[in-house]
Parts: sequence; C-alpha cells; structure tokens
Amino acid sequence: MAAATNGPSPGRLASVYSEVQTSRLHHALPLPSVLCSSFSLVDGPPSSATGNPDEIAKLFPSLFGQPSAALVPATEAAEVKPLKVGVVLSGGQAPGGHNVICGIFDFLQDRAKGSTVYGFKGGPAGLMKCKYVELNTDFVYPYRNQGGFDMICSGRDKIETPEQFKQAEDTANKLELDGLVVIGGDDSNTNACLIAEYFRAKNLKTRVIGCPKTIDGDLKCKEVPTSFGFDTACKIYSEMIGNVMTDARSSGKYYHFVRLMGRAASHITLECALQTHPNIALIGEEVAAKKQTLKSVTDYITDVICKRSELGYNYGVILIPEGLIDFIPEVQKLIAELNEILAHDTVDEAGVWKNKLELESKKLFEILPPSIQEQLMLERDPHGNVQVAKIETEKMLIDMVETELGKRKSEGKYKGNFIGQSHFLGEYEGRCGLPTNFDASYCYALGYGAGALLQFGKTGLISSVGNLAAPVAEWSVGGTALTSLMDVERRHGKFKPVIKKAMVELDGAPFKKFASLRDEWAIMNRYISPGPIQFIGSGSDAVNHTLLLELGVQA
Amino acid sequence: MAAATNGPSPGRLASVYSEVQTSRLHHALPLPSVLCSSFSLVDGPPSSATGNPDEIAKLFPSLFGQPSAALVPATEAAEVKPLKVGVVLSGGQAPGGHNVICGIFDFLQDRAKGSTVYGFKGGPAGLMKCKYVELNTDFVYPYRNQGGFDMICSGRDKIETPEQFKQAEDTANKLELDGLVVIGGDDSNTNACLIAEYFRAKNLKTRVIGCPKTIDGDLKCKEVPTSFGFDTACKIYSEMIGNVMTDARSSGKYYHFVRLMGRAASHITLECALQTHPNIALIGEEVAAKKQTLKSVTDYITDVICKRSELGYNYGVILIPEGLIDFIPEVQKLIAELNEILAHDTVDEAGVWKNKLELESKKLFEILPPSIQEQLMLERDPHGNVQVAKIETEKMLIDMVETELGKRKSEGKYKGNFIGQSHFLGEYEGRCGLPTNFDASYCYALGYGAGALLQFGKTGLISSVGNLAAPVAEWSVGGTALTSLMDVERRHGKFKPVIKKAMVELDGAPFKKFASLRDEWAIMNRYISPGPIQFIGSGSDAVNHTLLLELGVQA
Repeated sequence: MAAATNGPSPGRLASVYSEVQTSRLHHALPLPSVLCSSFSLVDGPPSSATGNPDEIAKLFPSLFGQPSAALVPATEAAEVKPLKVGVVLSGGQAPGGHNVICGIFDFLQDRAKGSTVYGFKGGPAGLMKCKYVELNTDFVYPYRNQGGFDMICSGRDKIETPEQFKQAEDTANKLELDGLVVIGGDDSNTNACLIAEYFRAKNLKTRVIGCPKTIDGDLKCKEVPTSFGFDTACKIYSEMIGNVMTDARSSGKYYHFVRLMGRAASHITLECALQTHPNIALIGEEVAAKKQTLKSVTDYITDVICKRSELGYNYGVILIPEGLIDFIPEVQKLIAELNEILAHDTVDEAGVWKNKLELESKKLFEILPPSIQEQLMLERDPHGNVQVAKIETEKMLIDMVETELGKRKSEGKYKGNFIGQSHFLGEYEGRCGLPTNFDASYCYALGYGAGALLQFGKTGLISSVGNLAAPVAEWSVGGTALTSLMDVERRHGKFKPVIKKAMVELDGAPFKKFASLRDEWAIMNRYISPGPIQFIGSGSDAVNHTLLLELGVQA
Repeated sequence: MAAATNGPSPGRLASVYSEVQTSRLHHALPLPSVLCSSFSLVDGPPSSATGNPDEIAKLFPSLFGQPSAALVPATEAAEVKPLKVGVVLSGGQAPGGHNVICGIFDFLQDRAKGSTVYGFKGGPAGLMKCKYVELNTDFVYPYRNQGGFDMICSGRDKIETPEQFKQAEDTANKLELDGLVVIGGDDSNTNACLIAEYFRAKNLKTRVIGCPKTIDGDLKCKEVPTSFGFDTACKIYSEMIGNVMTDARSSGKYYHFVRLMGRAASHITLECALQTHPNIALIGEEVAAKKQTLKSVTDYITDVICKRSELGYNYGVILIPEGLIDFIPEVQKLIAELNEILAHDTVDEAGVWKNKLELESKKLFEILPPSIQEQLMLERDPHGNVQVAKIETEKMLIDMVETELGKRKSEGKYKGNFIGQSHFLGEYEGRCGLPTNFDASYCYALGYGAGALLQFGKTGLISSVGNLAAPVAEWSVGGTALTSLMDVERRHGKFKPVIKKAMVELDGAPFKKFASLRDEWAIMNRYISPGPIQFIGSGSDAVNHTLLLELGVQA
C-alpha cells in the first residue's frame, strides 16, 4: 500500500491506495498511432439524422448536416494555440471517466502548451453555477486509470430552460472557454448538442464536444462502436457469472437465476452470455419482437429444465436482463391498467377491484406470484406509476417456473428436483470498478481525440474512436455529428430531439451467434469462467472477445 | 479461448476455457522448501484437547494424546512404497479444493511411484457407497488451479451410524486403502477423526488425514493459521466493497449497507474491513461481548451518519456480518420466545398473541420494521425454528437507521439526507472463484503434506502448513492431532466431540488494529479499493495484507 504523491488539493491525494490501484497509476497508456505524431482533420460527406431530418434541421439550424471528421496523419503539425477547455461528467458513473479527463488534459499539455482545463464540479450544475476546479498535473495524477467519477463528481441536472442556457453562457464567457467536453449518456449528449447549437447561435467561441459513456452499452452507432464502461462492467459481471457456473456444476443442485443491468436494452446480458455460455439468456428485444407472454417465457425456461433433468442435470444458470418485463407486451398492458386503477379507484381487500382489469390482464395478474402482485400494487414512483425496475424479475421467474414444474411433476412429465437461487448483480458493483486496459485506453483516446477536435475548432460532434477490435495503434480517431444520431420524439405537443438508445439488433452478428449456439448451451454445459479482470498477462488486453470483435468484423 | 487437453474422462475435459483459466492451468506452483528434497518427520510433545480432555480421551482411546508432527529436512529420502489413497471433498465449496487433490496426486507420483489415488464422488456418500474415480494425470490436469469442487464433487452426508462406519470400512478394505484424506470444515474434520479412530480400533491399515477448508475462516488454531478459500473469498468480496466505496465517494449520496458471509463468526467482515477501511464494520463477537441491543447498534450507526453529515459527507459504506443478529442477546431471546409461541399457539391478526412475549421481547418486536416482523413470523425451518439466516439484516438496519434519523431530524439534531442501498455479497459468488496464488499454493502444500503424513503412516492429524506470511519456500509443513482441536458438547444426553469454530478474538491483533483505526475510518474517508484479484504482477502474491500477516507476527 502506498499513498499517492502529495499535492495541493484534497480528494484522492489523501487516500490510501491498494497495490493494484498503485500499479494502475503507473500503467502507461498506448495511443492510437494517428495521435502519436502530426495529424490533420478530414471532413466526410454532409450528415443527416437517424429519423425526421427535417425536424432535426429545424431544431439545430446551425449544426444540422455537419460532416463527420477523421484525424489523418499529416506531414506538418497543425497550428498550436493555447485553449481554455471545460469538462463535465454527466449522469451515472462508468469505469474510465477519469481517463477521458486525463486524455483531454494530456492532449492540451502535449499539443497546446499554456492551455487551461477546468473541471466543472458535480455535473452540469457546476457549469451553470460556475463551480469548477482548475486541473493541474498533481491534481490529475492520482485519478489515472482509476474507477469512479470523484475527481470532479457528476450530476444528473440538465440544461433546459432559457435561464439555464444563459447561466452556461455566462460561465463560458467568464472563463473565456474555447471548448467544453460533456461526458455522458444519450440524454447528456443530446443536451451537449443543444448547448453547442445555442453557443453557435449566440456567436460564442465555445465549442462543445460529447463523449459516449454508459455501462449499459446502449449509446452507440456505426462510428461509435461502444460506450465506455461497458467492457469493464460486463467483465465484472461475467466473472461473477463464471463463479456461479462453477458453483452450479460443483454442487449439482441449484438453478441460478441472475438478473443483470440493462433496463432499456439487453446488451449486457448478451455480452455476458457470449462471454460465459449460460444455459439460458433472455434477450428483451427478442421477447418483444416475438410478442412473448410471461407464460411462454416461463415455459421456455421450464422446457429447458425438464430436458436437462432427463440428461441428469438438475442445475443450471439463467441470465435475465433487468428490463425484461418491460419487453413483454401483456405485462406493459397490465401495468398501464394498474396505473389507471390505482390512480382513480380504491383497492378493496376482497379483490373486487380486479374486475376493472381487462380479462387477459386479470388472468395474467392472477398467475403472478403473490409477492410480485404486492410489488405491483405497492411500489409506485412520484408520478403514481408502478416501478418496474424494483420488481425482482429473477425471483418472479423462479416462483413461476417452480409452479409450472410442480404441475408437470404431478402429470409425471418431470422427475427432477428444482432449487432456484436468485442473484442480482447490481449497478454499484459494476459501474465503479477499476477500468480494464481496454476501457482505460479507449477513454484516454476519446479524451485525447476530443482535445484534437477542439483544436480544429469543431463543435457538436461526439468523440469517436473506431476499429476497436484491432490493436490500439490501429484505432481510428475522429468525431461524429451529434445531430446525425438524433431523431425526434413528440412530448407535450413539441418535438424534442433524442439520441435513440441502441437496442440489441436481432439481425446483428452478436445476437445471431448467440442464437446459433444457445440450444447447445441449454443442454450441454459449455460454461466459461472468465475469471477476475487481469491488468497484465493473459486476457488483460482482450477487447471483448465477442460482441465488439464481431461488430468490428461487421462494420 | 482454448479447450483443455483431451483425455479419457468427461467433466472439464469437454469444457471451453477462458484465457485466464488456461493461463492458470499453466501456473507453476511453488512448494515449501522442506517438500522440495528429502525430509523426515519429527514428533512434538503429547497433545491434549481444547476442552474436556478426559471426555475426548474416552471418545478417542486410540488417538488421544497424539503429538503433532513436523516435516524437517533429512539427508536421506524416506523409504518409498506405493500407496493406495482415497480423497473426499466434504461440505460447501472453497477455492483451492482441486489443488489439495492435485497436491496429494503429485506427491504420490513424485515420491511413491506406483501409487493409486481414488476420488470418492459426491462427498462422504461416495466413500460409503464405494463410488469413486481413479485419478490419472489427464483427468487431474484440467482442474489445476481452477475453482469449484467439480472434479469429484462434494456432499454433506456424515458418517454417523454403525452401519455407515461399516460401509466406510468395507470400501477401505475393498480398495485396500492405505490412506484417506478428508477435505472439509469443522464438522467434516471431526468426522474424519472419528473414522480414523474407528479404523484404528478395527486394526485397518487405512490412515485418515484431514484438511482445513472453509471460506468463513472459522476453522483454525495455532498450527492451522487459516482455512483454505478464505483468502480468495475475502478478496472477491473486498473488490466489490472497494467498487462500492468508489461509488459512494463519486455519487456522494448513498449509504451502502453490505452484508457479508459469516454466520457463526465475523472473520470475513473483519478481514474485508482491514482490506478496505469502511466507515463502519460490525463484528458479531464484539456485539455479543458488549451485550449490545439492536437499538444500541442502530444508534452507533446513526451517530456516525450524523457526525459525517456535519462534515459534509452524506454517504458511506457499512459492513455487516450475515450472522449479526444471532450475536444480539435480546434478539436471540425474542426468537426463542417466537419459536415457542409459533409452535404451540395460533397467531391472531389483531396481534393479541404478542402479549405472550415477555415485555422486553414485545418492545423489541414492535420496533422492528414490518417486513422483518413478517420474516420472523413466516420463515421457519423444518424443525419450526425461525430461519435467522434468511433475515435481510442489511435491509433491517437501513429501515431502523432511517427511522432514527427521521426522529433526530424532527428534533433538529440531523440536517443531512440519507439514502440507504442494500447489498448482499453472497456465498455462491465467493466460494467458487478461481483461487488466488495464495490459496492455490496453500492448498497444493496442504495436499502434498497430507501425502507425506500418510507416507509416514500418520493418522488422525489435520494437514498443517504454517508461517504463511513468509514466502512459500519458508512455509512449515506437518500435521496437528485432530483430537487437540476438540472439545465436547452435550447432545441428547451424550458427549459429542466437536471442533469449536474459531471466533474473532477481541484481544487478538487483527481486531485490535481494526478497533484502533475505526474511529478515524468512520469520520475520514480512508477507503481502499483492492481491485480484482491479480494472478501476476502487483498484488498477485500478497497473502492477506492484514489479518494473516498479523496473526503470523503474533504466533
């Protein structure tokens, strides 16, 4: 254990570091070769939008249609002038966030001497309130390759009202910002683009660049093959799944139902499935596409359990995305009806209120385990909506499978024994891990590249690092027009720009690979135990073996 | 990813291995230097028992008083004859079990050519039913340094009745066993000693050696400084705690209540606390010694939260041993009364039944959160006892702290915000991890040493590897009389031998170190994030930094 170097500021400098943390401080980060010598910027063709380009054009009159830009080697270095750059962390943590900031800082130190970097504290609120810390070498040092967002902390505020935009403008003017980098998810990058548009319209010199962050992996497009943090989080979860698989095989008597993060999309479940080969992995997007019912999902699991039992395996591992029941149409319908009833009617103990449900919803409600019925009735958010995220889907499925197996047993169709064990691999364990070598390098390149985009005066782009399945030296670096990722949604009678969450593509290579193997995984035991994340030696420099690599091949 | 080598048997040979698993297959294990050349065995003084030596002497007439034995370097190799040795895994998994078997196998291959090793399948039941697999190089290979117990699987049966002892005898005779190694926890080692005594009394040639296994770390004594699996499990849990700490510091708004394994003793909580420096860690043994009440535990937590709030920290991390409420005298009393009432009386909805509780128990019951009251009423084991282990202590404490903070807030004594987040770092995630370098080497030495003890004709000993805080070369190897670890308990009017679980010693160096630092940890943020287990490079060869090392210094 060694304390980090002393310096003028509090925070990590006062911390005690573990051996591994200390060794990570000294881990030298490779840069894509294009960032290692002189480069220039090449624009691509004009861009459009993901949907409703006319509306996006109206919402972003200055920025719409911007080309994407790519860094290419140049014989002469670009003109260097010092920049003043602000950086904001927005939303939930993801492993690698500190390295994005280090990348920006190092770019400016290396390539634009005399530059200043301001870290806005506590997310967008720091920008609005002009609360910041000026970064220097000693301050940044102890956060290199470390998890968390505590260098400047994050926040969930958004810059939405005219007053808030004015506040951001005032800060930009006061600090004479040449650039602002917003590190965040889909909402934060949408917000970054609105700020870019506003600053441009106001003729401010401040350019705005976004960076793709989310462990859920649902912020991506062709030019942004993944969001940072996804790799580390999936590897943390996959280690645990691998351990649980070893347990299943060793004790031979448990079915482990493992709920994973991913409310909107099932990328984490798919990636973890490809890394570990569970007997079953439910993919929300498929459940929705096939309009599966809770009964058909239950039957699918039960069928596998029965087949395995005949082969002598009364154990297994099943992966479930957190958002599963959101994908089941009949459950969505039931919840919508419940929201209405609970908002307007009194609920009688005898259950007469249930007659207000439509027949199919009533039937569905009645096959749910009592504990889940109770959760549906009790847990509501401030808007009176049922909090689907709080429902313990893995426990619900264990209950329902158990009931179905009991039925089949009494019919003589199942002779095995079933013990379900529930697991929830939570957000907090995954989002603050030490970043893998991949996330550490990827984030550093994202930050370094964001600095380069600002140097060339770009705005309204998201930092884009591609060709990620290749060695770091071969990674491409550039920026993608944020407006090109956008579509509109109609809210309160107005069009709002949104970066749509990227869902698991059922005709994409990763899902197709999973689908081609899952019947074998269901019956045979093809478990893989990835083990703990390694920082040197075997496995340490593996990009995701599967999902990213295959996406890379596809692209 | 590479498949393991092919061979004649199923099991792991059909598995797909991750890069890290494959690299672990090739990890060469160091041996203590005494095992690297010729050695002989030196007996110590006669032994006694931990308690009631007279009764232990009656229960183990052949074995009582045996000396412990230590391997020492010798100029000439001991006489070599081939041995037939059986091995049994007993009870729950712990990382490293496979390496104990590999150690036995390699010892016999290296030192007693022509030997045979039988792996009894599914634990003691395999011994009784003579269900076994004969181990060979190819069969053993894919399990080297791997987690789990699936090479031969484990079981929880005990050899207790005269018929069962006879079955074990028949197997020993049928296979002409010279030795039997029982790998297990306190109960399994007690059972091993009973079998050793029985075989000796029956003049069988079969010697019996135990090996200390349990992730809970509560099987240990002076000569057995730790049980295997404890190191790996604590490091897996500590990684997660470190991540949660980084999250607490980054988001600045959550109190994470983390429940850890350890029903009988709080070793895991203490070790994880020493590795990570949480704001609070509750140690069951201290709670019991101080006769703390649930209220006083709640107040202690609440006081720290209030103090931290005044310093501007509305976040923190609190570690809780699974068995906490078992250590609180008033809770034990309440549960005993509930067991009685629930067994004999009907429980009325109106709650009149509560008047059958003694006044203090009734008061305690009424301050419990409703969900916990419900769990106490509902969850009972087949004997009608409340299942304390199923109570979600971390959620209970969050509820109780929240209530107390609300009270203080209304009195103007607390101005902060409190959001509790519950975590349970479960058994399955910890007990089947890939063993650390420490557990891999320790287990290998335990197994190799067990082989040596059998070569010298020893029986009724537990394989003992000491001086563990030193480099592997300097570890001591020998055997400790199992009877010396024993005491008796009175059950059904008879004395039964038991190896008492080792509790956290409140006057031991590890607890004293913790106690001397915890006030600082409570208020300051001294979090350490150990990161994922590393197999090479920084941190990979660290024995536990704290607990074991200090015990080593003490010894």
